[in-house]
Amino acid sequence: MEPATGVTRTLARFVVASKPDDVPAAAVHEAKRSLLHWIGCSIGGSCHESVQCALAALDEFSGKREASILGRGERVDAMLAALVNGISADALGFTDTHLKTVIHPGGVIGPAILALAERHKTRGAEFLHAFVLGIEVACRIGLSVYPWHYARGWHITGTAGVFGAAAAAGRLLGLDEQRMIWALGIAATQAAGLREMFGSMCKSLHIGRAAQNGLFAALLANKNYTSSNTPIEAPRGFAHVLGKNPDLAAITANLGQTFEVTQNTYKPFPCGIVVHPILDGCITLAVAHDVVAENVARVVLRVNPLVLELTGRKTPVTTAEAKLSVYHSAAAAIVAHRITEREFDEDVVADPDVLSLRARIDAIADTGIREDEADIVVELRNGPSLHHHVEHAIGSTQRPMSDGDIEAKFRGLTERQLPRERADRLIKACWNIQNETDAAVIARLAARSAGNR
Amino acid sequence: MEPATGVTRTLARFVVASKPDDVPAAAVHEAKRSLLHWIGCSIGGSCHESVQCALAALDEFSGKREASILGRGERVDAMLAALVNGISADALGFTDTHLKTVIHPGGVIGPAILALAERHKTRGAEFLHAFVLGIEVACRIGLSVYPWHYARGWHITGTAGVFGAAAAAGRLLGLDEQRMIWALGIAATQAAGLREMFGSMCKSLHIGRAAQNGLFAALLANKNYTSSNTPIEAPRGFAHVLGKNPDLAAITANLGQTFEVTQNTYKPFPCGIVVHPILDGCITLAVAHDVVAENVARVVLRVNPLVLELTGRKTPVTTAEAKLSVYHSAAAAIVAHRITEREFDEDVVADPDVLSLRARIDAIADTGIREDEADIVVELRNGPSLHHHVEHAIGSTQRPMSDGDIEAKFRGLTERQLPRERADRLIKACWNIQNETDAAVIARLAARSAGNR
Repeated sequence: MEPATGVTRTLARFVVASKPDDVPAAAVHEAKRSLLHWIGCSIGGSCHESVQCALAALDEFSGKREASILGRGERVDAMLAALVNGISADALGFTDTHLKTVIHPGGVIGPAILALAERHKTRGAEFLHAFVLGIEVACRIGLSVYPWHYARGWHITGTAGVFGAAAAAGRLLGLDEQRMIWALGIAATQAAGLREMFGSMCKSLHIGRAAQNGLFAALLANKNYTSSNTPIEAPRGFAHVLGKNPDLAAITANLGQTFEVTQNTYKPFPCGIVVHPILDGCITLAVAHDVVAENVARVVLRVNPLVLELTGRKTPVTTAEAKLSVYHSAAAAIVAHRITEREFDEDVVADPDVLSLRARIDAIADTGIREDEADIVVELRNGPSLHHHVEHAIGSTQRPMSDGDIEAKFRGLTERQLPRERADRLIKACWNIQNETDAAVIARLAARSAGNR
Repeated sequence: MEPATGVTRTLARFVVASKPDDVPAAAVHEAKRSLLHWIGCSIGGSCHESVQCALAALDEFSGKREASILGRGERVDAMLAALVNGISADALGFTDTHLKTVIHPGGVIGPAILALAERHKTRGAEFLHAFVLGIEVACRIGLSVYPWHYARGWHITGTAGVFGAAAAAGRLLGLDEQRMIWALGIAATQAAGLREMFGSMCKSLHIGRAAQNGLFAALLANKNYTSSNTPIEAPRGFAHVLGKNPDLAAITANLGQTFEVTQNTYKPFPCGIVVHPILDGCITLAVAHDVVAENVARVVLRVNPLVLELTGRKTPVTTAEAKLSVYHSAAAAIVAHRITEREFDEDVVADPDVLSLRARIDAIADTGIREDEADIVVELRNGPSLHHHVEHAIGSTQRPMSDGDIEAKFRGLTERQLPRERADRLIKACWNIQNETDAAVIARLAARSAGNR
């Protein structure tokens, strides 16, 4: 075989040689946020029917039950855990997003290495470092083929994600440079996932398979299973076959100096992004003025025209419909002073207070309002009109979620699965991961057990 | 989700509704040949280092050990068996070929359903029917995207094969039409495998993963895991994302009337196809005249120029080099009166009789000789010159291997793993598969067990 040259070797060498202390504090902190966020998403999604179906089909094939399923009580083998914890990460459509590539990295990289950490005791600092490196690899490979690749129809979280999972798992397995190249090669030749699947359970399968296939790649490479030495850059390699005129230089530019995890973002609300500025404004007013829904005479929303195009549904019934209704979303936000999955449950959609308020909401399309902007007026029956202008919605790049916002989202996501005290300990363990002697503590805290409720 | 229309539904409906009696006798017979051939390839490849590495990495993750590894003694879970029996099918590069698509179907479809047959007792006739249907699905989907897809760099046996494995496994699981569509969809969104991997172990991984991922798809669909209802034909589905201007009509044209398995072919010798006419001629002369190598004064080969370009190596040492040497190949064929894997072992490559004869072979490039043609003269020391002209090499479409040829190939492939009597029983079981009450008899006979040597 030809000697390895080019970007795959450079990337492999970086992943093998990087030291935890090489990662800047800002990247470390964003990695902790991404970790906490992913764990919350997976726990929140752990009872989704896609998870139930996958376990119904695959549990009987499980090998040694040494890994946890986040938010659940079953234990399964490491590779099945990687799959299921990836599916659950995406199940609520509430994942993190590396905006430059629209990759959702946390739920791919995390499951691959958490399953390994449950097999081999792994220091928290090493675990977080592998997480950073995996995100780096996935996002850089994604950058090399984006946007043509995504426009063509590839679900980039699956196709680029598998490289990140392989790199992170390979790092924890201690692969040397050649084996890391093979791990990336075995990942390359499994890269798959079609956007046509959006709207079906297969969308989340892409995330789970990327995690599982990346782990599989690292395990095979560790036992000397060979691949091409130029799996990404060769004429018939990943970047040319699944991309067009790929920017291979993006894979290695400033490698080790910039960290893509710092570009990760988080969705504050579990519904379409266009509604986020409205929800942000409604919650802000409701909390600041302790608004009680029955005292509200009328709500007037001035919104970007896209909001009514995409979410103009006036009388939703199901959860899916409610997520596509700015009227329900705004009403529920004012009633509950928050928006979590709970506010889209069908009993909330049918709640008399919400139904009543929903009918008193007017939404006005205004071409002068940007997509991340909204203007909210809440007219009270016996009081002043409350007004709030959202210049940039929470979660936008201009106004990222604070650590507290991410904690609040985590609590909203996990409250049905974990008791409050357990959630507190898990949040603390994620922030403190670098000092944990055993990263698997996260899996133990996130799994439901006899003593867990 | 949009209602399902188009080729995926048509294909799913066909797979669900087809009856064993609908398959013409010629297709049934070719399916038996393909089955026997695959089993031979997998047993022959069962000790290849790619199989060893895969088992070293994955055996410890095995679930319930209810499936056989062909040619070996270990038992593993059904999904791991599908993977390993697919890898071994391809490991020697000696697979069957559907020439219109260059898909190697047997080693993808077979492992997926044999693993199921070991879980649930399956009549041989049903098993063979599922095998036929799986080959049909893989080849038809391959036809829709070939040749652009292959030229782009996709290893079509992996990408199209996974659909066939899913369809065949889904048929044995008794999926209804909707679930069969989902199985095809889950297959579509896992379609992967890059030609860049040729020359590494990953080439065979594609075959194993296609088998395993197809089985995985059918198992998930069986438990209501959903996909798009138009995974092949949609603008962001398989055919448009991994193909260009796909011929979707090829997927359903004459469905149920023609059967692609009848187009399957088999390589007679485990080396490059260009040497096959020479080997055919040398073996024919050696057998017909009971040639003894030491009596040979000189051999003159007139060959297509490509033979010397690709296999002009005069002094090979390793197995890989010997396969690229027309001189070794012809000498070994005359010495042994056959060509099997054994004739490329390094001790045979260094055998004094072979070395000596090799030096007395002249190969002359002749632009008047076609690629599947050769002209052979063997000059004896104390006798006449023997001459044979190969108009079309054995294994070409003009001169397919006979059932006896396939049996002989099977014996050559399996002689190191199976005692003669066991090979005889296995051959008989494959020819008789339609009458077997339990298709798993094939797996039991093909696995090495305590009583197996």
